[in-house]
Amino acid sequence: MEIERASIQLAEAVKAASDYTGQGKVAAYIPELAKVDSRMLGAAVCLPDGTILSAGDADVPFTLQSISKICSLIVALCQNGQKHVFERVGKEPTGDPFNSIIKLETIKPHKPLNPMINAGAIAVAGMIQGNGVEQRLDAVLSLLRKMTGNPALSINEAVYCSEKRTAARNRALAWFLKDSGVLATDVEETLDLYFRHCAIEVTAKEVARLGMVLAADGVIPETGERVIPQEVARICKTFMVTCGMYNASGEFAIDVGIPAKSGVAGGIMAAVPQRMGIGVFGPALDEKGNSVAGVKLLELLAKEWNLAIF
Amino acid sequence: MEIERASIQLAEAVKAASDYTGQGKVAAYIPELAKVDSRMLGAAVCLPDGTILSAGDADVPFTLQSISKICSLIVALCQNGQKHVFERVGKEPTGDPFNSIIKLETIKPHKPLNPMINAGAIAVAGMIQGNGVEQRLDAVLSLLRKMTGNPALSINEAVYCSEKRTAARNRALAWFLKDSGVLATDVEETLDLYFRHCAIEVTAKEVARLGMVLAADGVIPETGERVIPQEVARICKTFMVTCGMYNASGEFAIDVGIPAKSGVAGGIMAAVPQRMGIGVFGPALDEKGNSVAGVKLLELLAKEWNLAIF
Amino acid sequence: MEIERASIQLAEAVKAASDYTGQGKVAAYIPELAKVDSRMLGAAVCLPDGTILSAGDADVPFTLQSISKICSLIVALCQNGQKHVFERVGKEPTGDPFNSIIKLETIKPHKPLNPMINAGAIAVAGMIQGNGVEQRLDAVLSLLRKMTGNPALSINEAVYCSEKRTAARNRALAWFLKDSGVLATDVEETLDLYFRHCAIEVTAKEVARLGMVLAADGVIPETGERVIPQEVARICKTFMVTCGMYNASGEFAIDVGIPAKSGVAGGIMAAVPQRMGIGVFGPALDEKGNSVAGVKLLELLAKEWNLAIF
Amino acid sequence: MEIERASIQLAEAVKAASDYTGQGKVAAYIPELAKVDSRMLGAAVCLPDGTILSAGDADVPFTLQSISKICSLIVALCQNGQKHVFERVGKEPTGDPFNSIIKLETIKPHKPLNPMINAGAIAVAGMIQGNGVEQRLDAVLSLLRKMTGNPALSINEAVYCSEKRTAARNRALAWFLKDSGVLATDVEETLDLYFRHCAIEVTAKEVARLGMVLAADGVIPETGERVIPQEVARICKTFMVTCGMYNASGEFAIDVGIPAKSGVAGGIMAAVPQRMGIGVFGPALDEKGNSVAGVKLLELLAKEWNLAIF
Repeated sequence: MEIERASIQLAEAVKAASDYTGQGKVAAYIPELAKVDSRMLGAAVCLPDGTILSAGDADVPFTLQSISKICSLIVALCQNGQKHVFERVGKEPTGDPFNSIIKLETIKPHKPLNPMINAGAIAVAGMIQGNGVEQRLDAVLSLLRKMTGNPALSINEAVYCSEKRTAARNRALAWFLKDSGVLATDVEETLDLYFRHCAIEVTAKEVARLGMVLAADGVIPETGERVIPQEVARICKTFMVTCGMYNASGEFAIDVGIPAKSGVAGGIMAAVPQRMGIGVFGPALDEKGNSVAGVKLLELLAKEWNLAIF
Repeated sequence: MEIERASIQLAEAVKAASDYTGQGKVAAYIPELAKVDSRMLGAAVCLPDGTILSAGDADVPFTLQSISKICSLIVALCQNGQKHVFERVGKEPTGDPFNSIIKLETIKPHKPLNPMINAGAIAVAGMIQGNGVEQRLDAVLSLLRKMTGNPALSINEAVYCSEKRTAARNRALAWFLKDSGVLATDVEETLDLYFRHCAIEVTAKEVARLGMVLAADGVIPETGERVIPQEVARICKTFMVTCGMYNASGEFAIDVGIPAKSGVAGGIMAAVPQRMGIGVFGPALDEKGNSVAGVKLLELLAKEWNLAIF
Repeated sequence: MEIERASIQLAEAVKAASDYTGQGKVAAYIPELAKVDSRMLGAAVCLPDGTILSAGDADVPFTLQSISKICSLIVALCQNGQKHVFERVGKEPTGDPFNSIIKLETIKPHKPLNPMINAGAIAVAGMIQGNGVEQRLDAVLSLLRKMTGNPALSINEAVYCSEKRTAARNRALAWFLKDSGVLATDVEETLDLYFRHCAIEVTAKEVARLGMVLAADGVIPETGERVIPQEVARICKTFMVTCGMYNASGEFAIDVGIPAKSGVAGGIMAAVPQRMGIGVFGPALDEKGNSVAGVKLLELLAKEWNLAIF
Repeated sequence: MEIERASIQLAEAVKAASDYTGQGKVAAYIPELAKVDSRMLGAAVCLPDGTILSAGDADVPFTLQSISKICSLIVALCQNGQKHVFERVGKEPTGDPFNSIIKLETIKPHKPLNPMINAGAIAVAGMIQGNGVEQRLDAVLSLLRKMTGNPALSINEAVYCSEKRTAARNRALAWFLKDSGVLATDVEETLDLYFRHCAIEVTAKEVARLGMVLAADGVIPETGERVIPQEVARICKTFMVTCGMYNASGEFAIDVGIPAKSGVAGGIMAAVPQRMGIGVFGPALDEKGNSVAGVKLLELLAKEWNLAIF
């Protein structure tokens, strides 16, 4: 990949995809997210040697939201092992919206179908060990600081508080999990941890680095330091394909074909095996909760650079 | 109705139905309820002149549980009017278990289908007005004290606390209602009120009096004092037919044919229009949550005394 | 009930309810039904002595559609007994639309929840015995001829053919029942029988007589001849309360309070125990499939004549 | 890949996986399939140069069943284009069993979520063009004959007839699709075509060749002849990952990680991009409908040869 040419192509793709920002809306159910300028779009690419290309609003901070589901899954798997984790959360895509509660009742046993829907991610948060919320949060934050190379990575308190105040649906999911015995830890503490994960603040550049670490099977590009076991990285990339883009994952797999995870703040983290990590920020969302322009941008890049894994 | 003969028939019916107590189990999900002797069975009949006949364990105290759904609905209707109440809770039977959450998501708008399922009763609890939980509870308690003629009617604290500690599913329902905008009041305060209603302690004799007041269209038998508007009494009896026996209501309507409301402590309150109220206590439940022997007993009485309204 | 005054009140109620015909639409999914004038409204009352009062379009023929579900249930119960019938179809209201297929899959065993939804009525049609469709149809037709006193009662061939050609959803339901083992007879023959039942042509006056026979516990008013066992009549009236008006049955029970069954051709058959049968014809339907003006009309009459059974 | 060593490893893997045949059962709902010996297990690998390795029952003929869903999708896409096809069938995994009908009603518009569940495959069969069933079948058969290199490939008439006689659930699905307007063609003809596709008879060796053509992006290994457009091959492989193993697709993606499609006759077709096609035959199925020993075998091979795409 020729860096200069790739830079130009990235800028052109961001420009082309920007036209689509008008087709979406910023997330309204978390008041703090609703304040963001819906026309923003930024992207960054992190290459195996750590080089970062970027275009557009690639330095604007935003919160991870559902992208954090990958991070907490990594920590939960490392702390508890696959057996423990997958006894409490499944591996199947659902076809339902990310905040749906139906299958918690209809599927027996009542465990969430996968860790990428809210119910599953709350169950995963419940498995993160530590002495109190702060310490449990640190387990995730310290992983992310290593992956991004930014030791100052922290939480956006306004978003965290906004989400915590308005998270009635997530509370319903958590209490249902409690009732089913899936959630062993305290409900409010677990939700508090979940909201904090969601509110970790990053930029598209940092997200590109997260993607690159996964693309490199769990190794920090420049240093070669392993921060995620290879097996865990593989599991994450698989979930990103089957469930990463909410109930548009199947469509995204066909139309774009890159393992990716989106969040309702407008971020998308993509991992092209061995080749690159991509971070996108575009807060205007489609009705399923994915960045409208971000998806379009990844589609353009996937075609331009032939990134599809299939 | 000849009193003496009726007394004998009631005693015989209780004796015959007692054989069925072995086919059920006491409610296990509320620890305090699980301690009760499952072989008990008692019944009382209250006639229009206030006469009370009884047999078996008719003086054993038990908690109203879901029977309280009728009482809180009465208060909510009196305080807010039909329009306000039925904009927030429907009038349709569901076919689903009493604690099901599925239809809260699938039905648009997301309001509970009726006030006899848990979700609907929690929504109704949210409409009971008053300054704090104590005052809101008093609105229900004072109605019940009038209806039963027992000014000392109060809450079983052990059951209340037991239920409050273990009510994860009800919390899930309440938070879902909060998310949908159906529940305007504070979730924990509303649940607290709901648990207290459920824990009001009565005997089969007192429940028979509750039934008689409804059977008399809202009037206290002896005094003739109106304590419930006629229209509200009619609405309650209708709900008792269409939704009173959980998702066995349709079957009960055909096999027995009396407006009735059951609770998981084993109580059933039945109202035979103009003729009598019946109170039953039999803690062994079938899988849908109704007193096994209690249902059988009402079936026997309905045949013996030709009580079916259809 | 004073006849003359009642006649005037009926005429006034029809006139008042006529204003509501504009709020509904004729059934469009059966092409032949879509041709009907949506502004029509007629009603007839049949009293215990056989006297018939009527107003509006009470002599306009229309097809029974779902009202026939009561008739085929009567025949099935008489031919097979309660045990056989209710092993194959339940007694519970559903909360779902009349043509819903969901609960056939979610409820175990896969039997229809009640005989008033399409799936249940198709299952019931499968239980009607006879040598070929003609003979099985005659079992229903001859009952109806007795009940209405009209020996010429027959099928509207155009509606029957129209329905048979366009009944894809009903075929889906029937095949699902076949797959579940609920339907033992040939699918196409059973559907053919079902479509013929639905296409039996009546007037509001005849429907009023049907209602009166049920109101009289199964006896022809003038002659005193018993044509339906009392127990079967009671079962029918109970289903009319809990499931007779599709998934608006609960609402109708509260707002009107009369056992009633509606059909998508715009008919409603109501049975006021011991007092009267009411036949209504108003083809403009609400979104749940009930006659808009017909429901309003029954609400007016119920208030005027105090007909509610609760 | 060293051929000799690979042959030994394949034989060892088949031997090891054979122990798992006892944990499953042959499909019972199609009588003809129920006659098969559940202890069989065979596998074949087709390499890019056309070399075929095999072990166990690799020459035993069996019917494609759901593996044919990939073949009919290829034909439908080639004949109609992506736009036409995906307007009638979605791209999302469902989390529900392959023969579930629920989402056809709950999802609006009522189109099947993907072409790998029965409803979706029936919709796809409806899009295959031709003059009559024979010609429509030939479109699929001639593709398969090219892909396998076996010009005599044909239908197992006994299985076809057995399936056609007992396919009540598929008829329910097809009629629901007809009702929703998804299926434009005649229901019985479309089902007939669908049953014939399912009954195409192959061996594990032939299935390995099918997989290799997809692995090679649509090109016949030896000749280099393109028989499937690259884009269509990519789409198929993506569906194989997200929905190929029924509602165990997500689990298979994580545990094995190879694009694969299974059928209830016990076959699995796997395509390892650029590297190999794998055909498996093991008729003992798990409860979700996948070959128990076949899945285990692929898991062993994926680890041995590092085949996972993630």
